[in-house]
Amino acid sequence: MNIAILGGTGKEGAGLGARWALAGHSIIIGSRDEERARAKAAEMREKIQRITIIGHSNLDAARLGEVIVLALPALGLDTTLPPLREACAGKVVISTVVALTFGGPRLFTPPPAGSAAEEAQALLPEAKVVAAFHHIAAHELAETDHAIECDLLACGGDAAAKGIVVELGSSMGLRTIDVGPLTNAGPIEGITAILATVNRRYKLKNSGIKITGL
Amino acid sequence: MNIAILGGTGKEGAGLGARWALAGHSIIIGSRDEERARAKAAEMREKIQRITIIGHSNLDAARLGEVIVLALPALGLDTTLPPLREACAGKVVISTVVALTFGGPRLFTPPPAGSAAEEAQALLPEAKVVAAFHHIAAHELAETDHAIECDLLACGGDAAAKGIVVELGSSMGLRTIDVGPLTNAGPIEGITAILATVNRRYKLKNSGIKITGL
Repeated sequence: MNIAILGGTGKEGAGLGARWALAGHSIIIGSRDEERARAKAAEMREKIQRITIIGHSNLDAARLGEVIVLALPALGLDTTLPPLREACAGKVVISTVVALTFGGPRLFTPPPAGSAAEEAQALLPEAKVVAAFHHIAAHELAETDHAIECDLLACGGDAAAKGIVVELGSSMGLRTIDVGPLTNAGPIEGITAILATVNRRYKLKNSGIKITGL
Repeated sequence: MNIAILGGTGKEGAGLGARWALAGHSIIIGSRDEERARAKAAEMREKIQRITIIGHSNLDAARLGEVIVLALPALGLDTTLPPLREACAGKVVISTVVALTFGGPRLFTPPPAGSAAEEAQALLPEAKVVAAFHHIAAHELAETDHAIECDLLACGGDAAAKGIVVELGSSMGLRTIDVGPLTNAGPIEGITAILATVNRRYKLKNSGIKITGL
């Protein structure tokens, strides 16, 4: 599958890209800065010894991707996404976006739309947005030689799109838990604040979450 | 320890009470309706064969409790809690409250205060509020013959109060994860929406959550 990762030069996006490239997918790293995207892709090709990683502007990456992953900052979606609307139309768009504010009075405040994923869906109305891959620690993704101990929580309105997420999750050894419609994205995004706090308090880099009882 | 459980006639509150009574604590079931509280306490005494469970009005329960557990509906805290302010002053108050709206457009919306726990703290300013015990399925609590497979996530501003939560958690075999200040209560409460959705979609009664990596 061709997977475009917008904001893919960051740790989380690059980590997902590395795992998927190793699983046989073709990765397009997207960035506002095309040069940075190309440099990151070259670095990743070298590091994991796969040639199927290229770099592009976010717009070209979105055009080339069959599936588009948003690994973007929450702040500024309303300027970043509208130019990509056409390139994302009809496609599965996976939002990993979380609005965390470090150093403020509150680590996580859901955006007015209820979640970053719902904000993305409103800005990309023809896309099939699924919220997923928020909780897989970048540190875990980067250490590609061992399994990741975390469940993949996913929610969204389109069952086929969630099926793609299940496939992308299992290609890196993750079990996907279906958490219903996109209106549950706020609670899923909020878990990231819990894990960030746990990492800081317990001096970890890789806390994760598992659902018990199933 | 004397533990008052306000709204303790409900499944979750009664389940917590049963586990704590079995661990040797004294339980005061509180209710708006004192008769219902007494009846529930009698039923619990019979069922689990412990005499240390009594029923009272919420106000008298709060007065008698050394620790006070809020197992109340989220809607109406602003009328239920103010009369209890004096009875709760200086005490550890554990909020298990979550604002879930079944059948609405969105299962979980954090209240304007950020969380039910922060709303409770604002209404009981002299209490030491900790948010905890949201995710332990009532079904699991009720089956007192087996261990509960779930972590206890707790947040709050008072370290000693969190210590009491750790003690109450370990008395029912739970590991407590410290999730920082009370401003993280919104994400903790939101997990309840995820578990409720998972229970419905996977036809379970007892999904829970574990933090991995520690």
